[in-house]
Amino acid sequence: MENKTPGALLTAMRAKPPLVQCITNYVAMNIAANVVLAAGASPAMVHAAEEAGEFAAIAGALTVNIGTLSTQWIDGMHAAARAANASGKPWVLDPVAHYATSFRRKAVADLLALRPTIIRGNASEIIALAGGESRGQGVDSRDPVEQAEASARLLAERHGAVVAVTGVVDFVTDGAQALRIEGGSPLMPQITALGCSLTCLTGAFAATIPADPFAAAVAALATFAVAGEEAARDAAGPGSFSWRFLDQLAALDGAKLDAKVRINAA
Amino acid sequence: MENKTPGALLTAMRAKPPLVQCITNYVAMNIAANVVLAAGASPAMVHAAEEAGEFAAIAGALTVNIGTLSTQWIDGMHAAARAANASGKPWVLDPVAHYATSFRRKAVADLLALRPTIIRGNASEIIALAGGESRGQGVDSRDPVEQAEASARLLAERHGAVVAVTGVVDFVTDGAQALRIEGGSPLMPQITALGCSLTCLTGAFAATIPADPFAAAVAALATFAVAGEEAARDAAGPGSFSWRFLDQLAALDGAKLDAKVRINAA
Amino acid sequence: MENKTPGALLTAMRAKPPLVQCITNYVAMNIAANVVLAAGASPAMVHAAEEAGEFAAIAGALTVNIGTLSTQWIDGMHAAARAANASGKPWVLDPVAHYATSFRRKAVADLLALRPTIIRGNASEIIALAGGESRGQGVDSRDPVEQAEASARLLAERHGAVVAVTGVVDFVTDGAQALRIEGGSPLMPQITALGCSLTCLTGAFAATIPADPFAAAVAALATFAVAGEEAARDAAGPGSFSWRFLDQLAALDGAKLDAKVRINAA
Repeated sequence: MENKTPGALLTAMRAKPPLVQCITNYVAMNIAANVVLAAGASPAMVHAAEEAGEFAAIAGALTVNIGTLSTQWIDGMHAAARAANASGKPWVLDPVAHYATSFRRKAVADLLALRPTIIRGNASEIIALAGGESRGQGVDSRDPVEQAEASARLLAERHGAVVAVTGVVDFVTDGAQALRIEGGSPLMPQITALGCSLTCLTGAFAATIPADPFAAAVAALATFAVAGEEAARDAAGPGSFSWRFLDQLAALDGAKLDAKVRINAA
Repeated sequence: MENKTPGALLTAMRAKPPLVQCITNYVAMNIAANVVLAAGASPAMVHAAEEAGEFAAIAGALTVNIGTLSTQWIDGMHAAARAANASGKPWVLDPVAHYATSFRRKAVADLLALRPTIIRGNASEIIALAGGESRGQGVDSRDPVEQAEASARLLAERHGAVVAVTGVVDFVTDGAQALRIEGGSPLMPQITALGCSLTCLTGAFAATIPADPFAAAVAALATFAVAGEEAARDAAGPGSFSWRFLDQLAALDGAKLDAKVRINAA
Repeated sequence: MENKTPGALLTAMRAKPPLVQCITNYVAMNIAANVVLAAGASPAMVHAAEEAGEFAAIAGALTVNIGTLSTQWIDGMHAAARAANASGKPWVLDPVAHYATSFRRKAVADLLALRPTIIRGNASEIIALAGGESRGQGVDSRDPVEQAEASARLLAERHGAVVAVTGVVDFVTDGAQALRIEGGSPLMPQITALGCSLTCLTGAFAATIPADPFAAAVAALATFAVAGEEAARDAAGPGSFSWRFLDQLAALDGAKLDAKVRINAA
């Protein structure tokens, strides 16, 4: 693929469209599937250890999110991540509130050892993942993205992964290159599981261009930034934003995405 | 019940209204419950092996969907299906993506052995269930409904069940009679779990007229076809369709349903 | 806190905002998290036995809902309730359809023994919980709130808890004092899991004023009554009500809440 702009990748994704295996949390399942569908890919929520690995070999990419973690789900996450690795499929890790309990810290350490292709988190999660002092408590970030940039670079180098930090201005790096993406809306953190949904969409882009996870992550962030900005225009609050966001994702096309997105070197 | 038109059954359902036990997937739970409530019946999401059988004896009908399958859920599905059979209650099987993994294929074979009253699936699922070559991969159908009609007839005869295939034009048969239902909207496959929700609504109609599962399936398909068509009229995309669909389900009455639905002999 | 009106508590909640651990059912997870976020607090859906207790010690309050119960979840509920008690945090019990099966009756009896601070249910649930004859079958109430007032008083005294009964007119008592709250909309029971969401919001208010769970419960009921009434104004059905309700929760402020709410002595 010559042209790797977000718009070109959105068009390519819809032409494919890729099957994305999403192991995500109970809160996110419905909205994440709707986000991936609206953007034009095909989500499949498959988590059981008995089939997660078999399915990962079929899917174009895998996403793993520890939001509502249970012991019996961890085996499925491991089986799927191993199968993704074995078949050369990219996989995305979303370490939701991994700093909150020892159960979560252990789970995320084990998942990191399985070498995710992309890590997507909020600033508190990325800072804590790099070993820093975050102010995170629950699932909401309490740190600005700028504070997490050094942590993201460190994580990217340490794990050979693309790291995407989302917030008011998103930051993405693979250790060598780094970009900032502007857009979105202050309403977005008021809607639960939009970050988890972005992780699933990142999987859809990673399946579209497996050889360039950095471009895939940028495209996912850009899609959310532009669709979010458009949806917020007529939204009166989080409720009216949510359905407008799905409408905007579906209405977005490659040309509009490239015309509207604001990406800057970091 | 003399009059078994979709409209008459919708009116009868609301007069009752039946309690429907829905064992469905995590993605579908919320929207399926809202669909059943909007249409006028009473959904109950009860799945644990410890209570699923006891509850099935209280409920008017049962629906079983393997969308996000886990081993521990299978026992609950079996207990509920056995209790439904033992107490003469109809039950509906939704074999989501059953062709995707060996875990799913085994699960659906075991459920078929418990003799579902109605089987509801997309074309890829019904073709594969009859032993044919479907193009299904993930949860989305890649085959047209017309290609699945022979498979549906074969399945209906083999299992003594009503088989409903949903797509652009729906097809329903009990092996002897067959109908096609037109309507709906191209937006519907863009919204996750609407098919799963239709399965739950089919249970609500089956509980309304347990003696005639064919008429129940037709009524459920007709309700979705008309409400979907109405909701699409002012929808700008999948997000604005979703809530309008619930509004239309709630606003639909028996007379309007019978006046608007387009049913043809197949 | 001198001023304990619903409006004052809403303002205090947003100034904090408290972290609320919600162990709730699969149907409710998304809408409950969105309700708590829209109202201005921070929800965290954490249920696994391995971390539920550790998390309850961090959170400002805990809510436990048995809607889609599984055996493996019960351990998490117990661990969390014990940890909440040990660290002096309030916790709220929502005994969804506890009368339906022996599995549920046992679960709720064990939870009651862990001394919930607040019990929130519909009339059928509260009547049955006090040992009376309710007409409840599934998850929907079939009894009017007035019929449940004596049961609520009895439960409050027996368990030393605040008891909130929701319906057309809500009733809340701690055994000594009692109030009725008017408002809301007939559309609210048509939307699944709004009651469960109210339980989570009650947790948010309980975390705001742990010393006065009665005032917290009243504030949560008042918030729902006013936001529901406002949302219903322009809603054409359950679908258009849902997102307007989230918008109204987010738009509500303390002054408007106190000006609009209708609370009467009982």
